[in-house]
Amino acid sequence: MASIGSHCILEMYDCPEGLLNDPVFISQAVREASVEAKSTLLEEVRHAFEPQGVTALALLAESHISVHTWPESGYAAADVFTCGEHALPEKACEFLVRKLQARHFSLRRIERGANAPDIRPATEIGGGCCRAAEELSA
Amino acid sequence: MASIGSHCILEMYDCPEGLLNDPVFISQAVREASVEAKSTLLEEVRHAFEPQGVTALALLAESHISVHTWPESGYAAADVFTCGEHALPEKACEFLVRKLQARHFSLRRIERGANAPDIRPATEIGGGCCRAAEELSA
Repeated sequence: MASIGSHCILEMYDCPEGLLNDPVFISQAVREASVEAKSTLLEEVRHAFEPQGVTALALLAESHISVHTWPESGYAAADVFTCGEHALPEKACEFLVRKLQARHFSLRRIERGANAPDIRPATEIGGGCCRAAEELSA
Repeated sequence: MASIGSHCILEMYDCPEGLLNDPVFISQAVREASVEAKSTLLEEVRHAFEPQGVTALALLAESHISVHTWPESGYAAADVFTCGEHALPEKACEFLVRKLQARHFSLRRIERGANAPDIRPATEIGGGCCRAAEELSA
């Protein structure tokens, strides 16, 4: 099948602890990221954890955005998955790096649908069916 | 920093069109997948698209599960991201392959937090900061 879109996996390091523990700020960041991606936000949920940490999920017409934060480590994990031709998931990731004031980041892009490695019949399920991405690319 | 968890990227091919276009079924599959992962479901949102397709997102205490479907192609894209030591994201993926009756699948596992490739300062943002995962592993 053809590619259906791009899935960007974003690691953000050395972010200010206070920003990462503010659920309203993180929620707003996800909403603004959906605009940067030129996507359409349909629904959003968020959760503030005790004693710290926030998750925000945006359901897009084009798929989803997630942000999960670990304030105590200055770390946030995000992903931006958009289908179709018009969306700009990398722009959303660059925006999140700036918005969360990360000093360092890592961004990986995975094509979804097409060109997946190691496609196997479902009959092979079980017995360690999951392979590390690095192993598959080797 | 240490690894904070595993992010499994699951492609499911050759699924029955009727299952993929049933929002109640997909929602139930995500809920059951959260149990298979030994995770705690905190919130869930879903959306049924016109003329077809479903998205379901589960906000977990351990991060998230997403399923997005393209019934016309028999294709579903899922990801299961869990932090901590006790969760079993691969089990949730194996469950989804069976539940959605995929005939073929591809499953990649990405370690989050630690060992990310190509960590760069935020000052380098812009000008094509996103690299394909395959390129980074080469």
